[in-house]
Amino acid sequence: MEFDSSHRAALWELLTWRRDVRHFSTDPVDEQTLERLQSAMNLAPSVGNSRPWRVLMVDAPELRAAVRENFTAANARAAALYDGAQADAYRRLKLAGLDRAPVQLAVFTETSPPEGHGLGRQTMPDTLRQSTAMAIHTLWLAARAENLGLGMVSILDPHVMEALFDVPEGWEFAAWLCLGHPAFQDDTPLLHRAGWQENMPTSWQRRSGAAGP
Amino acid sequence: MEFDSSHRAALWELLTWRRDVRHFSTDPVDEQTLERLQSAMNLAPSVGNSRPWRVLMVDAPELRAAVRENFTAANARAAALYDGAQADAYRRLKLAGLDRAPVQLAVFTETSPPEGHGLGRQTMPDTLRQSTAMAIHTLWLAARAENLGLGMVSILDPHVMEALFDVPEGWEFAAWLCLGHPAFQDDTPLLHRAGWQENMPTSWQRRSGAAGP
Repeated sequence: MEFDSSHRAALWELLTWRRDVRHFSTDPVDEQTLERLQSAMNLAPSVGNSRPWRVLMVDAPELRAAVRENFTAANARAAALYDGAQADAYRRLKLAGLDRAPVQLAVFTETSPPEGHGLGRQTMPDTLRQSTAMAIHTLWLAARAENLGLGMVSILDPHVMEALFDVPEGWEFAAWLCLGHPAFQDDTPLLHRAGWQENMPTSWQRRSGAAGP
Repeated sequence: MEFDSSHRAALWELLTWRRDVRHFSTDPVDEQTLERLQSAMNLAPSVGNSRPWRVLMVDAPELRAAVRENFTAANARAAALYDGAQADAYRRLKLAGLDRAPVQLAVFTETSPPEGHGLGRQTMPDTLRQSTAMAIHTLWLAARAENLGLGMVSILDPHVMEALFDVPEGWEFAAWLCLGHPAFQDDTPLLHRAGWQENMPTSWQRRSGAAGP
């Protein structure tokens, strides 16, 4: 397989137009699309080829309501940490699409999966959580390519989530994902546009000598 | 921006042909390509738009030698956990491209970045590490689109890495990345092909009622 400029352009467009979406239409997502997204997620890198992500598709209204309650409580605690203008700015941000997104997923990491036989995670157990994060990012890009938006919600008490879904021992909450047709499109992160946090440059430092940069 | 089947096909090919590469040619990677990869990495999702990944490009031979030593020690400890046929299989796996990869990166997470103002990580500080993992995955796909391979090495003692690079307080080691032209291409993970861990299906469980699946 030889990749060319058309692949690079397509990836660049997907990366540029991927957003953390919080404004959804209520139009449903069809089953075949969901199956394609699941297949794409399986192509994510994973330590020891272990695929430790576990996904629950949550339709039950009472479970969704409990998650919204968890978010509301965690968000109020988080908001209390800011004051003055920043507190006002925080309250103006829309931080989740829990109210409308037609598909909502609870993602966990199985922290001791038999798959992979422990390879690569003896020294760094966190590699399992890294694998789940990469799988979520894969889903994000695959959703974008289907003209869908995904929003990742982490203003939640993870232990409450684990209890709510009565997950097996060893499953650790990773994220709540809202998925659906975005209400609008934008190539600039909402937090940048809202004045909360601009896109900041990052640098790669070169270490050419032993004595530091 | 409306995505079509050409975007979906390009992403699918990139995901399918992305591998954890351990066999590299020693051909160098030019600076412009590295700059494009850095720009792509900046398009990764990050909690509160914080971009908490910190990247060191390590050229110094004495630093690379110290990393190889860290790997050798950690790998010997990991190998000792297996016995019988699995121990033999472990020893036959090539687990790193540290010997030849022309570009080698130490990636850290800044665990208390000023950027993002704490947004979204009060309840789940791990979201910063998730952001770094997603940035690494972004780099992985962008490298693949440039016909480059990337290998992620985690059989390393993370604290030894932090000490070796004398990183600022709060930087946490995430991964060592080997980058370069792959010696060969394959659409099946090496660990699957080597008989260590096949590709296992994953399932998305549906939760339609409060009482469980």
